[in-house]
Amino acid sequence: MAAPEQDEERETTVETVDEEELYGPSEELLENVSAALAEGDIPQVETLIEDLHPADVADLIEHLAPEERKLFVEITRHVIEAETISHLDETVRDEVVEQLGPQAVAEVVGELDTDDAVELLEDLEPEQQQEVLQSIPAEERILLQQGLTFPEDSAGRLMQRELVAVPSHWTVGETIDFLRAAKELPDDFYDLFVVDPTHKPLGSIPLSRAMRSPRLTRLTDIMETELRLVPFDMDQEAVAYLFKQYALVSAPVVDDAGRLIGVVTVDDVVRVIDEEAEEDLMRIVGASDTDFHAPAHLIAWQRVRWLVVTLINTMIAATVISQFQDTIQHLVALAVLMPIVAAMGGNAGVQVITVTVRALATRDITPQSNVLRIVGKELIVGFLNALVFAAILGVVASIWFGHVELGLVLAGAMIFNMVWAGFAGTLIPLLMDRLGLDPAIGAGPFLTTTTDVLGFFSFLGLATLFLT
Amino acid sequence: MAAPEQDEERETTVETVDEEELYGPSEELLENVSAALAEGDIPQVETLIEDLHPADVADLIEHLAPEERKLFVEITRHVIEAETISHLDETVRDEVVEQLGPQAVAEVVGELDTDDAVELLEDLEPEQQQEVLQSIPAEERILLQQGLTFPEDSAGRLMQRELVAVPSHWTVGETIDFLRAAKELPDDFYDLFVVDPTHKPLGSIPLSRAMRSPRLTRLTDIMETELRLVPFDMDQEAVAYLFKQYALVSAPVVDDAGRLIGVVTVDDVVRVIDEEAEEDLMRIVGASDTDFHAPAHLIAWQRVRWLVVTLINTMIAATVISQFQDTIQHLVALAVLMPIVAAMGGNAGVQVITVTVRALATRDITPQSNVLRIVGKELIVGFLNALVFAAILGVVASIWFGHVELGLVLAGAMIFNMVWAGFAGTLIPLLMDRLGLDPAIGAGPFLTTTTDVLGFFSFLGLATLFLT
Repeated sequence: MAAPEQDEERETTVETVDEEELYGPSEELLENVSAALAEGDIPQVETLIEDLHPADVADLIEHLAPEERKLFVEITRHVIEAETISHLDETVRDEVVEQLGPQAVAEVVGELDTDDAVELLEDLEPEQQQEVLQSIPAEERILLQQGLTFPEDSAGRLMQRELVAVPSHWTVGETIDFLRAAKELPDDFYDLFVVDPTHKPLGSIPLSRAMRSPRLTRLTDIMETELRLVPFDMDQEAVAYLFKQYALVSAPVVDDAGRLIGVVTVDDVVRVIDEEAEEDLMRIVGASDTDFHAPAHLIAWQRVRWLVVTLINTMIAATVISQFQDTIQHLVALAVLMPIVAAMGGNAGVQVITVTVRALATRDITPQSNVLRIVGKELIVGFLNALVFAAILGVVASIWFGHVELGLVLAGAMIFNMVWAGFAGTLIPLLMDRLGLDPAIGAGPFLTTTTDVLGFFSFLGLATLFLT
Repeated sequence: MAAPEQDEERETTVETVDEEELYGPSEELLENVSAALAEGDIPQVETLIEDLHPADVADLIEHLAPEERKLFVEITRHVIEAETISHLDETVRDEVVEQLGPQAVAEVVGELDTDDAVELLEDLEPEQQQEVLQSIPAEERILLQQGLTFPEDSAGRLMQRELVAVPSHWTVGETIDFLRAAKELPDDFYDLFVVDPTHKPLGSIPLSRAMRSPRLTRLTDIMETELRLVPFDMDQEAVAYLFKQYALVSAPVVDDAGRLIGVVTVDDVVRVIDEEAEEDLMRIVGASDTDFHAPAHLIAWQRVRWLVVTLINTMIAATVISQFQDTIQHLVALAVLMPIVAAMGGNAGVQVITVTVRALATRDITPQSNVLRIVGKELIVGFLNALVFAAILGVVASIWFGHVELGLVLAGAMIFNMVWAGFAGTLIPLLMDRLGLDPAIGAGPFLTTTTDVLGFFSFLGLATLFLT
């Protein structure tokens, strides 16, 4: 919609943002909504949320207690905006969609841009999805059904079908006249795409450039011709990389024949960047990347996987220790000191592996990087730190137990384990990446197994050799 | 610059992006550049990089070996683009800036938008910075010097001064005529800002909306009046949140008097989002967030801090174990099994703390969230998983050492430690956040101390009570 309709003095809400009140619904709003819900005061609830941005209403819904949430959705079901639903986190959105029923959800879907609509649809149960789709007009339904056939997390899922494509023989003036007359345009767009008669992109024109050019200018004279076309099946991580690398605000998506079928806009990419960074983080520590509102038993189940890995790891470590029971019996101080070697190696290793995984994700390391140089640097880092801590701990242990040889053994094991941490922390993710595996998955738990096992083995092994 | 000057048939490079060749310079390009550098073939080097995007040239420079890099910069110093310099990672950029000298850097700075120019300047040594600033024309120098006075990581640093502000009495037609005639405009812009005579923002107009409106439309009739003004000293994390929450592409920045002084665009925010996510990740594992190209001794030094924390932690854990030396002497199996309790608790805890820190960062948890509900859920998750693993490990230990009581003690300590992990993993970051501290800083190392100490204490303590 181009021009708002009201003619009277427009109500403006230009205000400077206060960082203190930026995040989430205010305490006051939450209390007022809760109170109004408790009293069943429907008009009051509607008044309270009337001026809120849909994203803020979504936050409000997420902050309500489950019972309140249900009531809130029931009360506001006829005024709730499509945008609000699309902003909800997955778990809460599922609940709300379930509660609204297919007919209402179909209306919501109809109001959204195709990218948001597909995102909402893809999370539904197959039957629910069918029910909703059947309530949508044929023309749009076909686009949505096609959207659902694109691979998950691909450019095709991310793109919206609404875009502005103009023929190459037009001038700036003709384009502006077209835009002024056209009814079916995206709410917001940032680039015009110049296409040939077969709908293949020839170039793009940032709106700012089009607006600055005289009416008679031919589009082909001002279009950006260094155009990077995104194949519909490109992974969203790659799309995000394109946007970051070339500071894009929108990018054209093409089908197998090279025809323009959609456009990815930067707001979707911002979401992807956030998601991918979170995914890396969660995978490194071995937590799941489900959303924050998932129920306890589901979260517990998703974390079990990496706890099982940890369990196996520690069993291996325990087996190693058990080989040295006689040595420990002979010198119990070993049992006191052995966790130090394992923990220092583990911690140093997790630092290294996190840096490496992140460098792979941000493409600071690429297949063309010099692996020897990268591993070499971490070996030096590991060795420098190992020397410092081995010296400190060697002295501490010598004094504590009045046993200089014990201090030396501890220092030796420390150096060995921390250098290993630097080596394995770089090499393991690099190898996994070369093998086409996600280097982030369980990197932490996996690495700490090796530092535990090697830490116990080197320390107890050296002790057996030199102290008994 | 609005219209490129060439009149002949324009060379176009519209091509579908190949995901395989997306990241970093190709093997072939790297080899060719290296070869050309080795032969001192200057024209060849220039030809090779001629068609590359500045961001890709920056990647190329980062991928070269240090000696090659020096040579490359020397050879290309007169053709290297300002954008290329601004895309380099900090460590490499420092090297390049040092090599180019103040005069050349001043030229580079002059070509950049103020935000990129300030970013380049802020990293320089004070003397270098002064030298460069003196070589810049007075008018721009003042803007840059002002930019440098804004707090680090604030909206003021992030914004560019170049923007399009128009008076409120104009029509769409007048605005378009102005844009066509104006010389000093930003390269790219996405919104027009409508200001009053004192330069205070009244509203914003997305370019797409302006283009679709008839010439005679008054700007005040189509402007967006729900405008969120960003104070110049707002933290960049808050700015990023605004962009994510409200899907913005640009946002107006105001001074203390509420006057429009700049605009933050989404490309800068994308960088911030990436940086902030990385910062969280690095802080949780206790690694530094320096860039990937920093030299080894610097990296080693920055990681020492958290290794010292780990050292203190493990010393505490060792002290706890040392209190139970008699018990261990009496039953060496305890030394074999005790790392299991510590590791399972530590791993579960790091999962919880990572999820909590991330939920705080993405504002899934806000000051208005129900803390009891959040902690309660993690306690349930911890307890569910604890039951499963306590059962498994209890049985394994009973059979392994033929000692049922030992298995029971292990199971008990496991349950205790994993529930603690769920409790502490949520409560520690929530508390830190309430106290105004960064919950991510050292969250991992700090938590694993508590799970180590409690793990050893509960296991060895229970063993002392029941097994001796």
